[in-house]
Amino acid sequence: MKSQLIYAFEDGNKDQKDLLGGKGANLAEMTRLGLPVPPGFIITTDACKEYLELGKAPIELDIQVTSALRHLEVQAGKILGDANDPLLVSVRSGAKFSMPGMMETILNVGMNDESVLGLAKISMNERFAWDAYRRLIQMFGKTVMGINGELFAIELEKAKQQQNIDVDFDLNVASLEKLVETFKNIIKTQTGSTFPQDPRTQLDMAINSVFDSWNTERAKLYRRRERIPNDLGTAVNVGMMVFGNMGDSSGTGVCFTRDPATGSPGVYGDYLQIAQGEDVVSGIRNPLSLNDLKQIMPEVYAELVAIMRKLEIHYRDLCDIEFTVENGKLWILQTRIGKRTAAAAFRIAMQLVDEHLITLDEALMRVSGSQLVQLMFPQFDKLSSKSAIATGIAASPGAAVGRAVFNSEVAQEWASRGEQVILIRHETNPDDLGGLIAAAGILTSKGGKTSHAAVVARGMGKTAVCGVEAIHVDYQLNLAMCGSIKIAEGDLISIDGSSGEVYLGAIAVEPSVIVKFFESGPGSDPIEIDAEDAELISAVDRILQHADSRRRLKVRANADTTDDAKMARKLGAEGIGLCRTEHMFLGERRIVIERLVLAETKEERELALEALVPLQREDFKQLFETMDGLTVTVRLLDPPLHEFLPDISQLKVEVALNQERGQVDSAKKELLLAVEQLHEVNPMLGLRGVRLGLVIPGLYGLQVKAIAEAMADLISIGKSPIVEIMVPLVASYMELQIIKNEARLIIQEVEQLRSVSLSINIGTMIELPRAALTAGRIATVADFFSFGTNDLTQTTWGFSRDDVEAEFFSLYLEKGILTISPFETIDIDGVGELIRIAVDRGRKANPTLHLGVCGEHGGDPESIHFFHATGIHYVSCSPFRVPVARLEAGRAALASAMYL
Amino acid sequence: MKSQLIYAFEDGNKDQKDLLGGKGANLAEMTRLGLPVPPGFIITTDACKEYLELGKAPIELDIQVTSALRHLEVQAGKILGDANDPLLVSVRSGAKFSMPGMMETILNVGMNDESVLGLAKISMNERFAWDAYRRLIQMFGKTVMGINGELFAIELEKAKQQQNIDVDFDLNVASLEKLVETFKNIIKTQTGSTFPQDPRTQLDMAINSVFDSWNTERAKLYRRRERIPNDLGTAVNVGMMVFGNMGDSSGTGVCFTRDPATGSPGVYGDYLQIAQGEDVVSGIRNPLSLNDLKQIMPEVYAELVAIMRKLEIHYRDLCDIEFTVENGKLWILQTRIGKRTAAAAFRIAMQLVDEHLITLDEALMRVSGSQLVQLMFPQFDKLSSKSAIATGIAASPGAAVGRAVFNSEVAQEWASRGEQVILIRHETNPDDLGGLIAAAGILTSKGGKTSHAAVVARGMGKTAVCGVEAIHVDYQLNLAMCGSIKIAEGDLISIDGSSGEVYLGAIAVEPSVIVKFFESGPGSDPIEIDAEDAELISAVDRILQHADSRRRLKVRANADTTDDAKMARKLGAEGIGLCRTEHMFLGERRIVIERLVLAETKEERELALEALVPLQREDFKQLFETMDGLTVTVRLLDPPLHEFLPDISQLKVEVALNQERGQVDSAKKELLLAVEQLHEVNPMLGLRGVRLGLVIPGLYGLQVKAIAEAMADLISIGKSPIVEIMVPLVASYMELQIIKNEARLIIQEVEQLRSVSLSINIGTMIELPRAALTAGRIATVADFFSFGTNDLTQTTWGFSRDDVEAEFFSLYLEKGILTISPFETIDIDGVGELIRIAVDRGRKANPTLHLGVCGEHGGDPESIHFFHATGIHYVSCSPFRVPVARLEAGRAALASAMYL
Repeated sequence: MKSQLIYAFEDGNKDQKDLLGGKGANLAEMTRLGLPVPPGFIITTDACKEYLELGKAPIELDIQVTSALRHLEVQAGKILGDANDPLLVSVRSGAKFSMPGMMETILNVGMNDESVLGLAKISMNERFAWDAYRRLIQMFGKTVMGINGELFAIELEKAKQQQNIDVDFDLNVASLEKLVETFKNIIKTQTGSTFPQDPRTQLDMAINSVFDSWNTERAKLYRRRERIPNDLGTAVNVGMMVFGNMGDSSGTGVCFTRDPATGSPGVYGDYLQIAQGEDVVSGIRNPLSLNDLKQIMPEVYAELVAIMRKLEIHYRDLCDIEFTVENGKLWILQTRIGKRTAAAAFRIAMQLVDEHLITLDEALMRVSGSQLVQLMFPQFDKLSSKSAIATGIAASPGAAVGRAVFNSEVAQEWASRGEQVILIRHETNPDDLGGLIAAAGILTSKGGKTSHAAVVARGMGKTAVCGVEAIHVDYQLNLAMCGSIKIAEGDLISIDGSSGEVYLGAIAVEPSVIVKFFESGPGSDPIEIDAEDAELISAVDRILQHADSRRRLKVRANADTTDDAKMARKLGAEGIGLCRTEHMFLGERRIVIERLVLAETKEERELALEALVPLQREDFKQLFETMDGLTVTVRLLDPPLHEFLPDISQLKVEVALNQERGQVDSAKKELLLAVEQLHEVNPMLGLRGVRLGLVIPGLYGLQVKAIAEAMADLISIGKSPIVEIMVPLVASYMELQIIKNEARLIIQEVEQLRSVSLSINIGTMIELPRAALTAGRIATVADFFSFGTNDLTQTTWGFSRDDVEAEFFSLYLEKGILTISPFETIDIDGVGELIRIAVDRGRKANPTLHLGVCGEHGGDPESIHFFHATGIHYVSCSPFRVPVARLEAGRAALASAMYL
Repeated sequence: MKSQLIYAFEDGNKDQKDLLGGKGANLAEMTRLGLPVPPGFIITTDACKEYLELGKAPIELDIQVTSALRHLEVQAGKILGDANDPLLVSVRSGAKFSMPGMMETILNVGMNDESVLGLAKISMNERFAWDAYRRLIQMFGKTVMGINGELFAIELEKAKQQQNIDVDFDLNVASLEKLVETFKNIIKTQTGSTFPQDPRTQLDMAINSVFDSWNTERAKLYRRRERIPNDLGTAVNVGMMVFGNMGDSSGTGVCFTRDPATGSPGVYGDYLQIAQGEDVVSGIRNPLSLNDLKQIMPEVYAELVAIMRKLEIHYRDLCDIEFTVENGKLWILQTRIGKRTAAAAFRIAMQLVDEHLITLDEALMRVSGSQLVQLMFPQFDKLSSKSAIATGIAASPGAAVGRAVFNSEVAQEWASRGEQVILIRHETNPDDLGGLIAAAGILTSKGGKTSHAAVVARGMGKTAVCGVEAIHVDYQLNLAMCGSIKIAEGDLISIDGSSGEVYLGAIAVEPSVIVKFFESGPGSDPIEIDAEDAELISAVDRILQHADSRRRLKVRANADTTDDAKMARKLGAEGIGLCRTEHMFLGERRIVIERLVLAETKEERELALEALVPLQREDFKQLFETMDGLTVTVRLLDPPLHEFLPDISQLKVEVALNQERGQVDSAKKELLLAVEQLHEVNPMLGLRGVRLGLVIPGLYGLQVKAIAEAMADLISIGKSPIVEIMVPLVASYMELQIIKNEARLIIQEVEQLRSVSLSINIGTMIELPRAALTAGRIATVADFFSFGTNDLTQTTWGFSRDDVEAEFFSLYLEKGILTISPFETIDIDGVGELIRIAVDRGRKANPTLHLGVCGEHGGDPESIHFFHATGIHYVSCSPFRVPVARLEAGRAALASAMYL
């Protein structure tokens, strides 16, 4: 059976993107709608696949091209390459998914030594004809015949110099004729073949070269990065050329059916007289507005506006349209769903709902979590002029301005007297928490997107730029150098967390109205906003509420403090999925961990622990009260030991210097000895989590006791705390079993002593491959699993995010080994596979097992879809990601329903 | 239906261990054989399981005990606890698997205030009767009634003091009568109940307490460690008491049908006159030999020898027999397959083959890889008196004597002039390789069984004791302190790698004849041996050859140098499964890695690399030539970066000291800066393996080029090198794909340049969970997988062996979370599951995929059985483990065939 490898524009439709590519399907759709599209035909992706497989065009294609071309010639009323009145065609690629600039386009196919004269005569424009011919040979030589484009560019440059002009546009007929000769010679010299004069040969070669361009290295790399399958192939669109550069009543333009920048209603676009598409892109002349077109050619304008309206209603979305006017006749060359800013996406989606063009479900599918993220961060005023002194990794979006400070104490002190500060450090650690909270933004010279500073900043919705290698921080001198530029304490700087740029001085900042809206609880002042912002807020709010009504995934927040918890509730969190307890051992209480670790007797240890119970009970009480009625999942202590101990290098230096100076400091020497004893080569793989809980008797008991007592206190005053205890870094069910047994005893004791009944679920993090693999066994002793996807990613891949991101992620992204950091979006094939295994085995062993995710991925849009599909019950993410997670959970529910 | 809960001895047989326990089944078997076993009955493990489930004895058991007891009384001709001539019984536990000392035994059941008088009269031995009664009450009070045994022991001690004697044996009747009264009072005071006078009540309570003893904490812990299932239950053996302490014609003994220490033929045993079993154990008197028994009671001796022969033929193995002579009558109390030393195991197995009692297959199943390991290490002479000054971790077995040295250079220097040295270090690293090779033994104060020193030592078959915390090494003073004992350079010390003990001075050492045998190639001197050793060597050799004929698993060796390779071939290796290449960058060449890592331009890098090609080509050439005709799998460089860079702490101290002294050393400062840049918090999770190969262009290319050139050189002189290239630490198939493409190009270049055809398989280590999970994808670009089980264990569990073994493995073993270090024996549930997944998915995607294991586990007996079952093609282990792997691979093949 002979398959149909070619569709005339009038025979296809917009739903045939698989077969006709995006561009072709839309051309067909517009033709079907009766819009003035230049006639043409589409060679299918199937033909491309066959071509790539055979290594040449199938014979059937040759026959069908002949037939389609004949049909086109009839429609156009001209013959391809005719000596008197030639039909010229464009040959354009067009895959299912847009791959801008990745594949080839050849224009003006059909020009040769004879038809150039005919075109000159019929257009009454000799320069236009010779320029078209010159362009074909240049494009053809480079694209189809594989000649280095530089060779043509050099000759073009020479021609302009000889004529003493600056732009191609001013080349005269003589120069162009000479260039055509020169270009033909280049082809001859480089390939041994002549430029083909036969129009059909030109067409066939052009089609094949578009097919070939599917498999260039850059196209393959692009697909790898964008995760576009390799076997789709591209369609080829062959259409009659129309020319916007014929004279005053010709021109070309791009328009949008609504404002893609703001989302405001009303048409919007650019128009350029006597021009072709590439002239608009090259920006040689400033384009006019659509209003100018209205003045110049009112009928054309009216026709265009009518078409825009028709397309928007037909596509039920913002359309992006390319058009050309040839001697007063409007031609539509392309349309597609228009790209838009985040704000425009939300506004337009709800406008279309209100115009009854789409449903709320559709509106929800038209926006994304990443867009919501953008809306939640402050941004620099786009109008202010600025130039960056350095660029780092855009670690946490937003814009921050403040005075440079180099340590956390100063940050807190300055902030307490009302100064905005930017905290600048080599890198941060948990001790910097106070400084991180106090600062408006964080800048580090080391670390990547998942460094401590970056993770904490994103969690707090705070701007951060990390790994700015050009900036050298000197803590001693209390300043930073960026090349020869000095940043002293107190100097004003600005950082852009969306671009990674760093500026000297203060750049004007616009705060996010969306965050203001979320923050404005019942008792707050009404926020001041204009109509656009009011529409935006309403759109976001309505879409989020719709997402809430659709989603199956619950959304909790990762929150360690009462302030975090309050914010989380405002942002819609349905509980706390991860309350870390490390901070309860930091600051003044840090000494306890040191004492614990260094304790030699049971008594020393117990003394240290007992002192902490009342302090921690109060911490928990406040937190549970804030979240009253909602679940709080408390993770027992999981400290990387080295973060709690003095730095060993520093200690060694101090001891060596003391010795050198003849000073005796035996305490320091002893400390060094103890620290050396505990020093770990790989702290991430060391004495952490439940291991520490087992090695230091009483440590977890203290935490369980404080939790149980805090609950008892709250119940006695009529509150309803709901608490879960989570054991970290479990690899074997026995570890969990032992801790669980201990905890149950302590809880029973408190229950008896306080005459209350405490229902506390005890479960575990699944953050080691072994835990996932043996989930069936672990599930028999766990009430719930919470996937710690950060650690799980580290061990599954065998790299530590602290160590490797900066070192080789950029190389891996460049080579396409990674398409995105697995610390940002869950690695479905590896880490995801472990999650699927764990969910499957865990559920089988314990059907009531509750399943959550509390790693960074809980707030990542793409990962949320995976978690939804895997049957997880809830995700937990940083408070500022809660609205994002709500939105994406709703979208995931819709998306999976659509595929059912 | 009523089930049979009790079997009389005459009704069971040796194959009923599941139901009757080991002891009971053998008692039944001997009864069936007509041997003089005191009559009795066995309560089944089913009864125990029912008891444990109900929490009390089932009624049916009560009825069946009554009936069995009646039958026993008829056989014995006495009534239980009869006032005139009482039948006394022993009540002993006996599970399917031996759990020595873990469960309870109660003797002399049936004694009471009346029967004690009857026994005294009928035995004509009043002291004997009262002592038996005293023992019953003491044992019953402690075991059945749960009273603290100390309370009885204290009173016994008091009685001896009052009588002014040392041993229980000398207590007179008056003291014993008084003790009986005191003991009864203790029971009354402690429990509120009296000691039960009713013999049947005593029996029932004793039976129940044996049941209960199955579930004591120590029994559960023992089972967890020995991996004995928890639900088997114990049988209870009730048998007529016989007494070896009646007079001169009474006695008790233990005998073996062959010498269990050496395996020499001929009976062997101990006999003690006028004694009961516990007296033999307590070692109060020196036992006599069986020859003495022959003198005292020739008929009894003759009967015993006949029984021994009968049992050995019947059981077709060495039997261990307990017997008692009561007034000249021989009673057999127990038999079982006897434990034996490693040498005895091999010799006896082949003796039995030669006696046509067993087949070669059976002989192979009677020995084990662990026993062969023991035979291969030198040992201290058992007769020399010695006392350890410290004990560490028995890291690599054997015995070594030498002069203490504290650094590798000295070790090599002293060794070169013929001194035996023991290298003492805090811990070792690859730079110590020369010292490790030179030393007779290694002692480290830090590190566990899988520390660098331990792994290397085991690989070289060298004795090592690690983690000897009591020894403090001072490199500055060039000595070590063990408490107040000083070990100076040159002092003689001895270390026992099987016990972890450290001795001052030289202890006599016996070298292993087995290793001498393996080492004696065709050209070597014949080794001097006695007949016993000759028999042992022959037995090992014949059994190994049989294993070779049975096994499906191939055995390769991990060998990096030509010397290793030569040894590996002698030990039977069928190739090299892992040739590490790190050593090719160490020593003088180390500077290259530093240069590479610090290189800033492409030229600097290429210069450094080019210089290495000829050197490495020669390394490879020698190695390939040694292994000519056998496969050599070369692993491309996988350096933990930190091992190749200067220590950062040390550098910091030096820079700080320089500054303090006002000295300027800008080179050092620069080095520090570079090292700081490259410093990794978790080097195990850092820039390693293929990551480094991708980050440093040309690095792997250099190695591939050297390999290909070495092969070409050898082929040109008529050799047949077979080489595979292995890429380490792959997590994504893309990493392998990129390296493989590069390698193929380089190999083609060499092929063209040298006009040879090089067939080189390229594959990957599977040592990361992600590699195992995505094995299906990786297999499409890999010719083979080699499981790196060390790293796979680290990432699957999320702990680094360097860091955690010492810190918490002992705790984990104690708590039963681990039954053995997962670095020693493969963790089947976690790591093993990943291996199963990878094998399965890899094979499905690529049916010709070749599968090997090159982690430490490749030489571990238990793990080898797992690899066999999983369908792996070969294991690769350190040369000295090759015979062990051959043996176990043969056993695994037989074992799996048995279960088919």
